[in-house]
Amino acid sequence: MSTDKSEFHSSLDNILEQRGPLCVGLDPDVDLLPSGYSSNIEGLQEHMLDVIAATADVASAYKLNTAFFESWGAAGWNAIERLVQAIRDKSPALIIADAKRGDLHNTARFYARTFFDTFDFDAVTLQPYMGYDSLEPFLERTDRGSIVLCLTSNKGSSDFQYHGSRPLFLEVARRCSEWNRKNVMLVVGATRNADDMQRVREVAADLPFLVPGIGKQGGDLETVLRICGRRLLLNSSRGISTASANRAGLPEAARNEAIRLLQNVKAFFEQA
Amino acid sequence: MSTDKSEFHSSLDNILEQRGPLCVGLDPDVDLLPSGYSSNIEGLQEHMLDVIAATADVASAYKLNTAFFESWGAAGWNAIERLVQAIRDKSPALIIADAKRGDLHNTARFYARTFFDTFDFDAVTLQPYMGYDSLEPFLERTDRGSIVLCLTSNKGSSDFQYHGSRPLFLEVARRCSEWNRKNVMLVVGATRNADDMQRVREVAADLPFLVPGIGKQGGDLETVLRICGRRLLLNSSRGISTASANRAGLPEAARNEAIRLLQNVKAFFEQA
Repeated sequence: MSTDKSEFHSSLDNILEQRGPLCVGLDPDVDLLPSGYSSNIEGLQEHMLDVIAATADVASAYKLNTAFFESWGAAGWNAIERLVQAIRDKSPALIIADAKRGDLHNTARFYARTFFDTFDFDAVTLQPYMGYDSLEPFLERTDRGSIVLCLTSNKGSSDFQYHGSRPLFLEVARRCSEWNRKNVMLVVGATRNADDMQRVREVAADLPFLVPGIGKQGGDLETVLRICGRRLLLNSSRGISTASANRAGLPEAARNEAIRLLQNVKAFFEQA
Repeated sequence: MSTDKSEFHSSLDNILEQRGPLCVGLDPDVDLLPSGYSSNIEGLQEHMLDVIAATADVASAYKLNTAFFESWGAAGWNAIERLVQAIRDKSPALIIADAKRGDLHNTARFYARTFFDTFDFDAVTLQPYMGYDSLEPFLERTDRGSIVLCLTSNKGSSDFQYHGSRPLFLEVARRCSEWNRKNVMLVVGATRNADDMQRVREVAADLPFLVPGIGKQGGDLETVLRICGRRLLLNSSRGISTASANRAGLPEAARNEAIRLLQNVKAFFEQA
């Protein structure tokens, strides 16, 4: 398969073909650090570097949750810069900023610049609430991914995402399909009921999904694969990064967990 | 009026009573810098410090748009820290992070920590899409403001905010009224038609509004004041920060523009 690097979907499809759907989530939290790392931004960074090294040849993507870094102020943003560079050095995996940004067009230009230029992320997660012009500065970067929140897996998703006789999340899926320039993905949580995920799949047949919630959050892998097929990223954060309670055991445990998930995916498609 | 600092609304009402509704927006953009400042983060910071000094005794709030800072990476976050400190040193004005964050409860905890603890903002703007649990880590900080996007002034607001037979923005207003712990505000753009702003006002009678779009964005001041009354923050960004094309003239021009806006407000209520 040849990759057209001007199209994000092409880069995504290429790495999915090579490696399968594993996205490793990096959510550095001192309360969940394995023992043996310092409880500060340096320790968190070392932990993340160990997770990256352990999975660099199997992950198709890494997803950095910016909230966890921002809580350290400027030092957190320096850590983001170092981790993005470490991933680039070790792996062809795509790098996602899980930043959930959304603002007026003029402001969104600056967020696009931040994530795609200042930090060289391949994709960023986005909020749909403000509509098309808030997404446009991201969408026009066709070589980068715009990953729009559609149906999330938390309890509060029922507050607004189901609003309307035709639920809002389906309207988001429909409009994002129209706006797609071979660079749009949708966030669809794994713990929602399967029917709703199926409805998104039907409305947005051309859009790959980013599915959090596999692993510790309890989403059902087979259901997700049955509905989504091969064109998705399955995110696992704590399942991999806290696979061992201590630093010595972490590299092997994280790697084993990553491989276990990919083997389960492979087994599903071999049976299917 | 005595201020109960454990309630954000009390702090807000107190400063509004003293000073009127002016919120000065700080959106540092090298393309809009008056001459005489360097086109880098240091020049932008000096420009913002001059705007703060010129308005410190008249502004009720400052709103820092995080996107513009983030595009400078860690240096931008250092600038945020310095500007927040400069405002605290010079003025009792409230300090708002216009960050438009929104994420799962566990992640939102880190954003709340970032803006309220790491950076000591008084309030932060928030995305409603993920629902109650995504807002809860902010809402439970009753001494700080949770300023939720409701009806924005951009063209794309019609894509999703009007979804449903009862439009989504009214549902957001209704639920935010329920969730209010004397610390919730709504973002309601000034350039929407007056009827929609009036509908939000009726649904969310207890919630003060943050109204961007006065000044350069063309919102009509009298209409906004007629509907909202005195319990709002009127944001002006470029109207004040680019009131002069050169550094020498900036302090006086910015101050005059701030005072002009407040005098127009005063004149409206004296006539009313």
